[in-house]
Amino acid sequence: MRQTIQNLEESKIREVANAGMGRPDVLAFWFGESDEVTPDFIRQAAIESLQKGETFYSHNLGLPELRQAVADYTSALHGPVDAGRIAITSGGVNALMLAVQALVEAGDEVVAVTPVWPNLTAQPLILGAKLTCVPLKPVDGAWTLDLAALLAAVTPATKLLVINAPNNPTGWTLTRAEQQAIVDHCRQTGTWILADEVYERLYYEPTSNGCAPSFLDVAQPDDRLVVVHSFSKSFLMTGWRLGWLVMPPALVPHMGKLLEFNTSCASVFTQRAGIVALQRTADVTPRVVAHLKACRDTLVPLLQAVPGVRVAPAKGGMYAFFQLDGHPDSLETAKRLVAEAGLGLAPGNAFAPEAQGWLRWCFASRDLARLGQGVERLKDWLSRK
Amino acid sequence: MRQTIQNLEESKIREVANAGMGRPDVLAFWFGESDEVTPDFIRQAAIESLQKGETFYSHNLGLPELRQAVADYTSALHGPVDAGRIAITSGGVNALMLAVQALVEAGDEVVAVTPVWPNLTAQPLILGAKLTCVPLKPVDGAWTLDLAALLAAVTPATKLLVINAPNNPTGWTLTRAEQQAIVDHCRQTGTWILADEVYERLYYEPTSNGCAPSFLDVAQPDDRLVVVHSFSKSFLMTGWRLGWLVMPPALVPHMGKLLEFNTSCASVFTQRAGIVALQRTADVTPRVVAHLKACRDTLVPLLQAVPGVRVAPAKGGMYAFFQLDGHPDSLETAKRLVAEAGLGLAPGNAFAPEAQGWLRWCFASRDLARLGQGVERLKDWLSRK
Repeated sequence: MRQTIQNLEESKIREVANAGMGRPDVLAFWFGESDEVTPDFIRQAAIESLQKGETFYSHNLGLPELRQAVADYTSALHGPVDAGRIAITSGGVNALMLAVQALVEAGDEVVAVTPVWPNLTAQPLILGAKLTCVPLKPVDGAWTLDLAALLAAVTPATKLLVINAPNNPTGWTLTRAEQQAIVDHCRQTGTWILADEVYERLYYEPTSNGCAPSFLDVAQPDDRLVVVHSFSKSFLMTGWRLGWLVMPPALVPHMGKLLEFNTSCASVFTQRAGIVALQRTADVTPRVVAHLKACRDTLVPLLQAVPGVRVAPAKGGMYAFFQLDGHPDSLETAKRLVAEAGLGLAPGNAFAPEAQGWLRWCFASRDLARLGQGVERLKDWLSRK
Repeated sequence: MRQTIQNLEESKIREVANAGMGRPDVLAFWFGESDEVTPDFIRQAAIESLQKGETFYSHNLGLPELRQAVADYTSALHGPVDAGRIAITSGGVNALMLAVQALVEAGDEVVAVTPVWPNLTAQPLILGAKLTCVPLKPVDGAWTLDLAALLAAVTPATKLLVINAPNNPTGWTLTRAEQQAIVDHCRQTGTWILADEVYERLYYEPTSNGCAPSFLDVAQPDDRLVVVHSFSKSFLMTGWRLGWLVMPPALVPHMGKLLEFNTSCASVFTQRAGIVALQRTADVTPRVVAHLKACRDTLVPLLQAVPGVRVAPAKGGMYAFFQLDGHPDSLETAKRLVAEAGLGLAPGNAFAPEAQGWLRWCFASRDLARLGQGVERLKDWLSRK
C-alpha cells in the first residue's frame, strides 16, 4: 500500500478514547459531539420517508428540495446564494474531501492554518499534495492569527488555502476584515480558499445574523471559494452524516461527477431529515447555541480558577482549549487523566505540534453539572501529584 | 480546478436519463437499480434505531455487530473470514474509492478490465494514476476474457488490477480457474487486486454456495486482495449507501484512517438495517435472485427474436447487454429511443469505447410485463425506420 497512507497519523484523540471507552466511570469530553439526541421531529421526517419507501438512488448533488432549503437558509444568513451553487454531501468531512479532490493535484502546494481538526491536513496529503502549516499563536490562552505571516505563506504557487474558523480546537475566529484581506490576496495569487465553517452558528459574540463572519459575506459567487457546512453541530445530527458545499457555479457539474465517484448520493431519508431541520432551524439552533454558551460560561471560569491552567473563553465552537503548566506532553497527560482521574479529554498535539501541552475539552454537555464534576477530577488529580 | 477532474466524463447514462426523466410515458431501464422498495423488516430496523435515538458518531470501521454479521455472511459463502478483516462503508462505490486511495499513488500504473461501470475507471484517475484498459471481447453476443492478454498487461509496474465480475454491464463472470491464475500472477508481480463482487449473489449458473466464483475462494488472507461488496443489489438497498470491504488484516487500521478522513462512518441506523438484512438474507436474497433470473429469462429470448439484436443471457448481474446492428452510435441510439420510442436504456459506450454500438438494459423489474412492453417499443421503433 501507499507509504503516504501508512504515514498518516492515527487520531491521537481515538488513542486516548480507546484507553477509556466502555469505562462507565470516565467523564468523556474527548469527541466533538453533543450528548443530546437529534430532535424528535427531525428523526420523524426520516422515519416517514422510510415508511413511504424512499429507498432508491437520489440525484448526485442532492434532492432539489434540500438544495433549495440550504440555499434559503444560507441566503438568510449571508445574502443571496443560488441553489445551483449547493451540493449535498455525506457529512462535512465528505464535503471537505470532495473539495480537495476537485482542487488538489499530486505535488500541489497547500497551506493550512493550524492547530486544526487533523482531517483537514490529512486530506491534501491523501491527494499527494505538499502541505505548509501556518500556526496561530497563543496569547494569554487565546490563539491569534498573524495575518501578515499567513498572506506571506500564500503565493502564486499555492493551489489551496484551508481555513477552519470558528476553529476546532482553539475557538479562534476570523474577523470580516481578515476574511476580506484573505480573499483579496487569494484573488491575486489565484489560490482557492477551502473554508470549513461548520461552527458558524456556534458563535458567542453579538452579531446581526446570529453567526460568525463567513467568507460568503465578502466573496463573489465566482471567487475561488468553497465553503463547507454540516448538519452535525447546529442541528445535533452528528451521526447522520449530512453536510453541504457552497461553490462557484462553474465547479458544480464537476462536483456532481466526484459525488458519483465517491458515494453516489446521500440517502433520501437522511436528506428528508435535513429539509425539516433547515425549515425548523428556529426550533433547534438558537436553543443549542444558548445552551452551549451556558456550557462555555460554566466551564471556562472553573478552569481559569485551577492553578496552572491557561484558557480564554472561545468566541466560537464547542471547545475549551487550555494549556496546563508542568504537563508538556498532552498525549501522555490525556492518557493519565483517563487512567488516574476518569476524565476524558483530547490531547492538543492531535491538532498540531505547536499545541503540544494543550488539552481540548468539548463542553457540549446536556448536563452542566458534568462539567463541574470534570473540573473537580482535574483538580483532584493535580493536587495528588 | 484540476484538469484531471474537468476531463472526467460525465455519465452518458445520466445524459440519456436526463433527457427523459420526469416523462411518465418512458419505460426506464437505464439505471442499475431494482424498482422494488427495501423489504419492510429492514426499514423497520432503521426506524427502531432512530426511535431509540442512535444518532451519534459510530466507529470508523463500522459497528462491531455489523462487522461480525458481514464476517458470518461471508464465511458461510467463502470459508472463514475474520470480522477484523471487514470495514463498513457508505456504499460499494465508497468502498472502491477508499481502496483506491489506500493503494494508488499519483503516477502509478493501474489495469482495469472493461467494459465496466465507469466509476471503476474514474477513481484511479482522480488519484492521478495511469490507466490501462484490457477489453473483453464479444463472441456471439457474450463478452469473454482473453486471460493471456490480461496477464501480459499486468507487470511488476502494475500497482493495482481492477476487476468487476459478475460484470456490469456485460454479465461476464470469472471462472475459479481464471481467478486462481490471476492471483498467482499478481503474487509474482506484487500487484494488488481490487475485486468488485457486488453482483456475486445475482448469479444464475448452478453453484454449491449460491453465488459466483469469488477471489476470496482462492486467495489467502494476506494476499494483496481487496474485495468490495454492497447491500444495494442483493438486499434491495440501493438508496441506503451501505457496503463493505474485505481486506488483509494489515490494511485494516489504515482503512480506518481513510474512513475517518472520507466520511467518518456510516450512520448507525443504516448499519442496524444492514445487520437485519444479513441476519435475514434467506428472506430476501433467494427471492430477489429467482425473480431476476425470471426477468432475464423473459427479456433475453424476446430480445434475441428482434432482428438485428445480438445478445446472450448474462451469467450474472442484472443487465441484458446487446448489440444492435445498423446503430453504431449507442449514445445517439439511446437518446433517440427515449425521445422517439419512450424506451430508456443505457448506452454501451458509457462503459468503454469497445462497447460502442451496444445498449444496456437493466432487467430488475418487479413487473415482468414491463420488459415485454419495452421490447415491443424497441421493435416498433426499429420497424418505423
